[in-house]
Amino acid sequence: MILARVIAPVVASEKHGFFEGRKLLLVKELLPGGGLGPRTLVALDGVNSGVGDQVLVAKNGGAVDDVVGLKDCPANVVIVAHVDQVRFAAD
Amino acid sequence: MILARVIAPVVASEKHGFFEGRKLLLVKELLPGGGLGPRTLVALDGVNSGVGDQVLVAKNGGAVDDVVGLKDCPANVVIVAHVDQVRFAAD
Amino acid sequence: MILARVIAPVVASEKHGFFEGRKLLLVKELLPGGGLGPRTLVALDGVNSGVGDQVLVAKNGGAVDDVVGLKDCPANVVIVAHVDQVRFAAD
Amino acid sequence: MILARVIAPVVASEKHGFFEGRKLLLVKELLPGGGLGPRTLVALDGVNSGVGDQVLVAKNGGAVDDVVGLKDCPANVVIVAHVDQVRFAAD
Amino acid sequence: MILARVIAPVVASEKHGFFEGRKLLLVKELLPGGGLGPRTLVALDGVNSGVGDQVLVAKNGGAVDDVVGLKDCPANVVIVAHVDQVRFAAD
Repeated sequence: MILARVIAPVVASEKHGFFEGRKLLLVKELLPGGGLGPRTLVALDGVNSGVGDQVLVAKNGGAVDDVVGLKDCPANVVIVAHVDQVRFAAD
Repeated sequence: MILARVIAPVVASEKHGFFEGRKLLLVKELLPGGGLGPRTLVALDGVNSGVGDQVLVAKNGGAVDDVVGLKDCPANVVIVAHVDQVRFAAD
Repeated sequence: MILARVIAPVVASEKHGFFEGRKLLLVKELLPGGGLGPRTLVALDGVNSGVGDQVLVAKNGGAVDDVVGLKDCPANVVIVAHVDQVRFAAD
Repeated sequence: MILARVIAPVVASEKHGFFEGRKLLLVKELLPGGGLGPRTLVALDGVNSGVGDQVLVAKNGGAVDDVVGLKDCPANVVIVAHVDQVRFAAD
Repeated sequence: MILARVIAPVVASEKHGFFEGRKLLLVKELLPGGGLGPRTLVALDGVNSGVGDQVLVAKNGGAVDDVVGLKDCPANVVIVAHVDQVRFAAD
């Protein structure tokens, strides 16, 4: 799993039936210092996220199946939590 | 999943029987700014895509199985949607 | 699996039910020389780890399922051991 | 899946029983321009390939299982096709 | 799968029960020219390897399950062969 920030919704017209009515979000990896890394993914929304949110992203098919409640989903990246805070020790 | 652009069809003569009659497409990762990243993959076509299309690519065997409707396919990358638009907030 | 160091707890308010009451930790890859690499992950805690610990991190859904004792967990990174020592040969 | 070129056979004496009598090939990622990228993998031969061949490589355990016709093979990279041509549009 | 060299044993005190009595080895990716790449992994020993050995490393949970003979092992990297030789064509 990685920390990421939601940067934009993704609009898809023609798509596999599974994606009908499901929200897709473009996310960028969030670096420990608070900046954005180069890694960009498209994630299924699992916890009602919006642009700007800090989120926890799981990257495996089983996670998507579990969040969606269906077997063998044709997606492999999903947002599983909103991250409020990463508590760094004073250093 | 990643955003990608279809850049070329891939023609394979000798191949595992699964690939007979199936379209394979070379795709390159699409960066948020619209450029192409260095990452290049060969994807099974799942939504009738062609060269130049902006697509959503899933990378896991389960996604391929689901799109194709068969179990344990010998492929692990598949195009699952056409992406019309990524709506960036004005910033 | 990779060697990593725990660098911070991750606090998530809204989250998939699976994560209720489970500890999430931000870890950074540990390089052979003892420094930290750029790779940062969020891992489920499997062996009661805390900030500063050197740990062994497994990255696959099956590992999480096994550690947690549930099927199809929506997480794919888990800490499976504390690493006391990496014994390099004198060179 | 990725495009790759076969660069050398890999000879292993002591090995897990599954690999007895199976050909292993070192492959390097093939870039769209025809050069070789830095990524190097060892793949199980699935379509009778030899040094110099342009091939399509699948990276997941299910693909290996399917090509070999056995369940839960201890290999996760397999050559699934010979690639004759990648048809780039004139540009 | 990748070619790698075993560089050190990994000693873990507190660990998931699966790892009791199992040998863990730090391995670094072996480049075609014979040097070591930056990629470092911790692998379960599957063929009785030691420091300095050239090995073939599989990265997927199924491979570990098969080598160990158990289902759903909490490990996802395993050494499956000793590599004696990579036969490069004269070039």
